[in-house]
Amino acid sequence: MEFPLYKKRDVAIVGVGTSKFGERWDKSLRELAWEAAVPAVEDAGIQGRDVQLVIFGNMSGGLFVGQEHVGALIADFLGLNPTPAIRVEAACASGGVALFQGYLAVASGLYDVVAVGGIEKMTDVPSDRATLALAGAMDSEWEAYFGATFPGLYALIAQRYMYEYKLSRETLAEVAVKNHYHGSMNPFAHFQFRTSVERVVSSPLVADPLRRDDCCPISDGAACVILVPAEKARRYTDTPIYIKACTVASDKLALFEREDITTLRATIEASRDAYRIAKLSPADIDVVEVHDCFTIAEIIALEDLGFATKGEAGKLYEEGETYVGGKLPVNTDGGLKAGGHAVGATGVKQVVELVKQLRGEAEKGRQVSNAEYGLAQNVGGSGATVVVTIVGR
Amino acid sequence: MEFPLYKKRDVAIVGVGTSKFGERWDKSLRELAWEAAVPAVEDAGIQGRDVQLVIFGNMSGGLFVGQEHVGALIADFLGLNPTPAIRVEAACASGGVALFQGYLAVASGLYDVVAVGGIEKMTDVPSDRATLALAGAMDSEWEAYFGATFPGLYALIAQRYMYEYKLSRETLAEVAVKNHYHGSMNPFAHFQFRTSVERVVSSPLVADPLRRDDCCPISDGAACVILVPAEKARRYTDTPIYIKACTVASDKLALFEREDITTLRATIEASRDAYRIAKLSPADIDVVEVHDCFTIAEIIALEDLGFATKGEAGKLYEEGETYVGGKLPVNTDGGLKAGGHAVGATGVKQVVELVKQLRGEAEKGRQVSNAEYGLAQNVGGSGATVVVTIVGR
Repeated sequence: MEFPLYKKRDVAIVGVGTSKFGERWDKSLRELAWEAAVPAVEDAGIQGRDVQLVIFGNMSGGLFVGQEHVGALIADFLGLNPTPAIRVEAACASGGVALFQGYLAVASGLYDVVAVGGIEKMTDVPSDRATLALAGAMDSEWEAYFGATFPGLYALIAQRYMYEYKLSRETLAEVAVKNHYHGSMNPFAHFQFRTSVERVVSSPLVADPLRRDDCCPISDGAACVILVPAEKARRYTDTPIYIKACTVASDKLALFEREDITTLRATIEASRDAYRIAKLSPADIDVVEVHDCFTIAEIIALEDLGFATKGEAGKLYEEGETYVGGKLPVNTDGGLKAGGHAVGATGVKQVVELVKQLRGEAEKGRQVSNAEYGLAQNVGGSGATVVVTIVGR
Repeated sequence: MEFPLYKKRDVAIVGVGTSKFGERWDKSLRELAWEAAVPAVEDAGIQGRDVQLVIFGNMSGGLFVGQEHVGALIADFLGLNPTPAIRVEAACASGGVALFQGYLAVASGLYDVVAVGGIEKMTDVPSDRATLALAGAMDSEWEAYFGATFPGLYALIAQRYMYEYKLSRETLAEVAVKNHYHGSMNPFAHFQFRTSVERVVSSPLVADPLRRDDCCPISDGAACVILVPAEKARRYTDTPIYIKACTVASDKLALFEREDITTLRATIEASRDAYRIAKLSPADIDVVEVHDCFTIAEIIALEDLGFATKGEAGKLYEEGETYVGGKLPVNTDGGLKAGGHAVGATGVKQVVELVKQLRGEAEKGRQVSNAEYGLAQNVGGSGATVVVTIVGR
């Protein structure tokens, strides 16, 4: 489908904020929202009353903390009543679809100042209950009911991919090693320590071939961006970052229904639309954030996004090209693996990192030099929803 | 706030569908979606591939059936991949905010054919767990944690209202009697039997003064509408119904934080905006759907919407004016009380009823004669989100 059928104007990001990601025992759901939203509002130089619409992504406030009605919770706690406040959900792509909805609201000309956020508070339940909550992102009747877990589904993907494309166990581990290296330079990251291939491949087995250190952590966190029309962006900031495209595609919910599990069709569909709308190609992208819920997911994402031919993404890791300073810096904030994966927050957190990179404001040694365009890929479940966002200076 | 800042075009509803509401043991979440969406698509004379965006309201797929990622589930089961499919949530106003988002998508010019739905599958869990899930719509930390339930919160509201405005127990019961009378003529209603004031006031006490028959049931159900630009509506149907306004307002999440609990400020805010945008007043409205989760809620809604002065709505019931044939027919499908309250579906189900009324297609003897304008009020929680939609021929 040709989208947008119509666009009144371009959209700019003029403020960003993120909470520290991690096990935030001291912070409740609403306090995490505050920790991300207030810096974003301050960064944009606006006040709460300037916000005309609030859209927050959240996967499962119900199963994690017994709180639905998350939009109203946030509008109330941030003192924004009676501003409309809506929660959107697409599993781990909840943040991405929130950005998509906020983008539409501004691109359409309907709203001038929209606060888009993502949030999840996951550590208030024991890890078995968190795993059960996360299973709500898959097909509950045809996958979860029969005992599937997310590490299990991605292990199937990894097994098949490694068999088809001869990816080595060590190369797969390089994904985690690189993301921990980047995360060690990100003060907001869940894990800020480095690791090694030896440590990853000898960490406890979770679902063969995936080991503990192939899996992203269960995190608490929130992120927020402020969107305004591009034509008004300079009123708010000297360094507006423009949304060149934001697209969503859907696919079969259950893994067994797909023709090929070594690729995410929704990534291919959404990125094809995004490149067309942005009038850009993979070669134009300087910094990438992809959804590395498991190491194998990052490998597949780079191929589906057109950064490597099928079966060849591993080479980028063997050659060290996905580090800051390489040809294609990937997950410069540590990604989900080290940066943390507060599921509903992730899609927004990725874009916060791209904005920092394009502004030249990334902390410590992880700044990509002179980045002009960035791309984020945010995945729901095992790929039934994918959001692709391209931003540029 | 002046909204919309900009509107490219008007929006029409050209197809509607609803499942039977009730205890649908034989139907899963995805099957309920099918039961509502397929009639809506057929009513619009389109095919699934014509749908460009899917937005479904759902309050708590996670707590009710262990299924989040509800948009993807529906797009998959309805064969709509790779069409973007997004779930939105605002507790019991989830259906209403889905309509709001769909309205924006078409009014903005960004999309030409949008399927908006609402869905909830509530009866797969025991009623105590359903009550717990519903508590996610209130402030989980400051209300639910201390033992509040929704009947409890609305009982507080009813106690205060009855004290302040001398509303009698019998008049309150008239709300339920009228809604059961209307529901008895609606083949999709959860309860299709009539009741009496005597039966309501002698039903078991739930939370004083609210009795069982003051409370809406826990229902399974789904509803769907197809939205297109008004200028293209006649391609699809001879009886387009136009969305004259669709507005959302937020308020404090917890009841104790509000200045006055006998009124919902968000209803006042959202309806004021809606009347202004639609260029209509309460006197222009011929048929009304309000959120009667408890009998007292319907009384308060009519006052907040401007259909009665504060404290006087009871008179409309004493005089029988809210029946079909009266001055102000309210909840002609049986409302939530008899029609059923599948929470995420309700905001859409209300609009399906208004469309039937305005088309002159209401079943059996509940057709309002020559209705030109209808208004729906959909409430999240105890009023932290309210959606008001005005439709016209």
